[in-house]
This record gives sequence, C-alpha cells and structure tokens, in this order.
Amino acid sequence: MKLATLKAGGRDGTLVVVSRDLTRCQPVPEIAPTLQKALDDWANVAPQLAAVYEALNAGAARHAQPFDPRTCASPLPRAYQWADGSAYLNHVELVRKARGAEMPPAFYDDPLMYQGGSDSFIAPYDPIRAKVSWGIDFEAEVTVVTTDVPMGIDPVAARNHIALVMLVNDVSLRNLIPNELAKGFGFFQSKPASSFSPVAVTPDELGDAWRDGKVHLPLRVNLNGKPFGFPNAGVDMQFDFGRLIAHAATTRELEAGSIIGSGTVSNKQGGLYGSKVENGGVGYCCIAEVRMLEIIETGKPQTPFMQDGDTVTIWMTDDAGNDIFGRIENRVEALPEG
Amino acid sequence: MKLATLKAGGRDGTLVVVSRDLTRCQPVPEIAPTLQKALDDWANVAPQLAAVYEALNAGAARHAQPFDPRTCASPLPRAYQWADGSAYLNHVELVRKARGAEMPPAFYDDPLMYQGGSDSFIAPYDPIRAKVSWGIDFEAEVTVVTTDVPMGIDPVAARNHIALVMLVNDVSLRNLIPNELAKGFGFFQSKPASSFSPVAVTPDELGDAWRDGKVHLPLRVNLNGKPFGFPNAGVDMQFDFGRLIAHAATTRELEAGSIIGSGTVSNKQGGLYGSKVENGGVGYCCIAEVRMLEIIETGKPQTPFMQDGDTVTIWMTDDAGNDIFGRIENRVEALPEG
Repeated sequence: MKLATLKAGGRDGTLVVVSRDLTRCQPVPEIAPTLQKALDDWANVAPQLAAVYEALNAGAARHAQPFDPRTCASPLPRAYQWADGSAYLNHVELVRKARGAEMPPAFYDDPLMYQGGSDSFIAPYDPIRAKVSWGIDFEAEVTVVTTDVPMGIDPVAARNHIALVMLVNDVSLRNLIPNELAKGFGFFQSKPASSFSPVAVTPDELGDAWRDGKVHLPLRVNLNGKPFGFPNAGVDMQFDFGRLIAHAATTRELEAGSIIGSGTVSNKQGGLYGSKVENGGVGYCCIAEVRMLEIIETGKPQTPFMQDGDTVTIWMTDDAGNDIFGRIENRVEALPEG
Repeated sequence: MKLATLKAGGRDGTLVVVSRDLTRCQPVPEIAPTLQKALDDWANVAPQLAAVYEALNAGAARHAQPFDPRTCASPLPRAYQWADGSAYLNHVELVRKARGAEMPPAFYDDPLMYQGGSDSFIAPYDPIRAKVSWGIDFEAEVTVVTTDVPMGIDPVAARNHIALVMLVNDVSLRNLIPNELAKGFGFFQSKPASSFSPVAVTPDELGDAWRDGKVHLPLRVNLNGKPFGFPNAGVDMQFDFGRLIAHAATTRELEAGSIIGSGTVSNKQGGLYGSKVENGGVGYCCIAEVRMLEIIETGKPQTPFMQDGDTVTIWMTDDAGNDIFGRIENRVEALPEG
C-alpha cells in the first residue's frame, strides 16, 4: 500500500491512502488521522488502511480525491527518530581517497550511522533555504520506517520491523562539515532539515525488487532537469536495512516511526569509483562524490555545489517506468550571505 | 508552573499540572492531554495550565490527586528533538587533559553539541538496562524545552523561546565512545536512552536563580546514596541556553518541544579540575570526570563505572532546600554479557 501526508491539518498533517498509480488519495480520519498514529498501532491499523488501498485501486473508494504531491508534507512531517547509515561504502571510500586517507578495515564490518535532526522535515517540493557559502549539496537515499524494535535484535529479524520504505534528500552543507566533524561530536549544523518522498510504501509494493533487506532498483537524480545519477540501490549496499536497524538498536529500543536511512546510494562500477552520466556511467547521488572524483583525477574539484535556483529531483521507477514514491523536488532559495 | 507526565495513557502518557511542593497533581485533558500537545500551542495553552497551577497551590483544584514521581514518565516520554550541548568546558578540558590532548581555542567560542536519540526516553525511576562491560556512566545536566524557534535566531532572543526547564541523566556508555567517535560520525550506540526529571518547570519557578539564560543552583548527584557531586549549574557554563539554542538553530528551525541540554555540569574550582566531595570539593556529575582526574593524578583510573545494582540519584533544591524537579533515580539492571 501507499501512504502520504497532506500538509493541511496541523503539524502532523493529514494521513491519506494513495492509489498505486499516484492519481487519487483518500483521507482516513476514522482509521488514523496521522501517519505516526498509524505506526503507533501498526498491527491493527495497517490492515484497515490496506482495505482502503484496495478499494481505491479498484475505483471503489467513496471519498477519493485527486492526489497532488505538491500539497504533501514529508510522510512524517516530524519524527521521533531519523538515523542515517552510510551503507554504500563506495561513497565513504571516495571521500577518503580524495583526502588521501585509508579506509579503516573495521568500516567493512561496522556500519557508520549518525543521529539526524527529525523535529521538522521540509516537504518534498519545499525549497532548501540556506547560504550558498555553506556548500549546499543533496544526498539521495533510500530509507525505511520501523515499527517498535526491541534492543539487541538480530539483523535478519530486524527486517520484520520495516513498515514502510521512502526516499530522502538528506540535505548536506559541505563547507560546514570539516569543522564540525573535527570537533568530534558528528554532524549538526551541517545537516539541516531533510526532505522525504511524498509517498511511503509498504515493502510488498516493490515486488521482487525488495529482497535481502534492500531495494533493487535504480535511484534517479536529476540536477536542473539533467540526469545526474541513477545507481542501483540494491548494488554495493554493504549493510542491508535489517543490519542498519540492528546497529541502531544495539543499546536501546527504537520507537515505532523511527526512520533509518541507507546513506547516499553509490555504485562502484568496476572499481573506478564510478563514472559520470555524461561519460556513460550511472552517475552519482550527491555532488560531493563528483567533486571527489574530480580531485582524484585532476587535483581539484570542478563541479560547484548547488547555487541559488538550482533544483534537484529524486525519484524511483519500477521496471515498467512507473513512479513509485512520487518525486522529491527541492529548489535552492539562497539566504543572504553574512 | 510545574508539569509532569504520568505513564498511564499511552505512548505520550498523561499531562498533569503538579503543585509547587510536588505533593498533588491534576490531569488536564480538556486543556491538553499530553505535554507535546501543550507545547504545540504553548502561547494559548500555558496560561490555562497556569490557572490550574494556581488553583492547585491554593488547594482549590477540583480533581487533584496525590503526586507520585514513581508513576511518571519523562515529561516528554518521546520527543522530536534532543540536542545536547557541552557548555561546561571543564568537563571537556578534563577529558582532553587525561588523554594528553590540547583544548582547541575554537572550543571556547563554538559550542560542542550532539544530536541525541529522542524516540524513547526511560522514566525518571526506570532502570538502566545495559551491559556492565559497556562502561555505564551517568551525566547530570540541566535542559530546556523550546517553543518553535526560527532559523538564524540571535542568542539573546533565543532565551524567549524557553518554555520549560528539566534535569536529565544523559546515560553514557564510556567503553563504546572511543571506537564510535573514531569513526567520525559522533555518538550513537554510546548514548542510550536518557532519563529526565519527573517534573518540568517554567523558568519563573526558579526565581532569581534563573538569570542570563542559566540556572544558578547546585545540581545534586548521589551514587548509591552517597554525595558524588553538587556543582553549581550557573558557574563555569561557557554558553548559556540562549547561545545553545541559537547554535542548534543556525541552519534549521527548531520545532516546539525540542530539548536542549547543557552538557555535564562541571565546576573548575580554582583551576584544579575540581575535587571530589570527600576531599572537600563540589564533586562531579559523572564518573568519567573522576576517572580523568585520577588518571591525571596517579596515571590510572580507580573509580569503576556503574555496576549491577548501582543507583544514581539526581535532583536540585531551592535555597530553602525544597526539591524543585523531583528526582531522577536510575538503578543499573545489568544485561548478560556476550
């Protein structure tokens, strides 16, 4: 089934069930007014929402209305947890290679994960408001939303706690990162509000593309309408979502509605750290990787970070070319410098 | 006014107004069923809660019941944000001195802050469930809860966005920290669920002790019933709460109900990195500081981290000796090793 949250209705918006083809939706106040409320009692609520979904797809829903992703908030407009892994090690290798640092062997066995801010996400079509001097970048990723997860869960069992799958633009302020990481406490100011796909889907919606706790489909990124990347999210993902959830739950429980991210999707493409779309490669899901490649190849970066008015679009299609999650489309609305 | 959340009533519990002397309380379902709901509309709701508080203190509340902090959840049982600063630089200096590292000059001007997990806090009298081998420690701190904070706010103006003050035990797993910080992404597994004081109070409850965005009162910590520390939270706080909020809001808005922590309260006591209570000092708010001092003085730590059954108690009294926030009392319930 597919779910979304309309902006209307307060801080948590209004939960709607969305038709598979993303053309119609239906509010379900009698079942669950918000997505968090649904997740709080998922075992009972999900079957009721699924029944609405079936009726909607069959054209038999009584209160269906047109679905417009531009009226959507992120599916969870605010969440109790956003923990982002870094499961595509090519991304990490590339960043380290560019600064001449070795990849610690432990990184292949112990997931990187940071605690992100989750109190107010921007909507899928909202602007990114930031200073250009901060080095505005996107990171296209896949995420899952969990049910309640007990502490100490096994990575395979953890897969059963995945309620929903979404995409995210994990907005990153690259020029703030070096100073912040040097302080030793991880990202904070360098990771402003993220933006999630308008639609969250249950894993079964992905059919055969959902297996081994991974989404085996290309994640598509356009920058100003031009293809920037379409690496396959099922390839080179060192840690599947079950593993990432288990990592997050090692020393504490996770509350229902926790969002766990994959990290920037990145394909190695034969050990060459990938190649750009214009060079025949599958490209990249963030500007930073392109710049790292440019540094490795030519000694300095050429591609600038996002400028005022630049727009990034992130989406995923099924094998038939149909949009699964709707699209994230964030335009930079530059803040004055100083 | 004073507020608390009873565990009964679901994931977010039940908001109650608590009498100043912490003996009675009253649920306020017709005003706000939960603390988050109250914070979502604070400007309208706070005066209504204040009226109940006045009646309660006057003995005129119609539905008052006895207040038992053991039936309380953390005031926000789950929150949309928990961002913890490290404003008492003595704590940071001590930790760095013990490992022979210099204090970077920027640390005196640029607050350290990490994004903590906020999806499920333990209750003030709940046990800490963790493996002793993880190196279980407490960190006693002061925290504030904000209203909505716009991005880019000024540190002084930010003080006006403080709705409530609480205490916290920021539980820390010391033996997991070195590996985690070495990975570069900050704390995650090393910071399990925190525990907040049963009662949250508006700043005016602190009277003259609330000034310059700081709480000028000793924060009291007992370990197994013996005084471990009582440093003054108004002393040696390099960055006041307004400054910490402004730091958190530099690149993003903060949603109402964001919790901002002071970091472990620590007094320098004349440049000697403080001294233990048994040596006539004001002691410490975490075991790690004592161990650092022992390392500096003798080359190795003597005080062990928390063991199975150890209990930490954290509270604050006014000048007359009255408990302000109720007490945090967390007992270690050791998980099996392996």
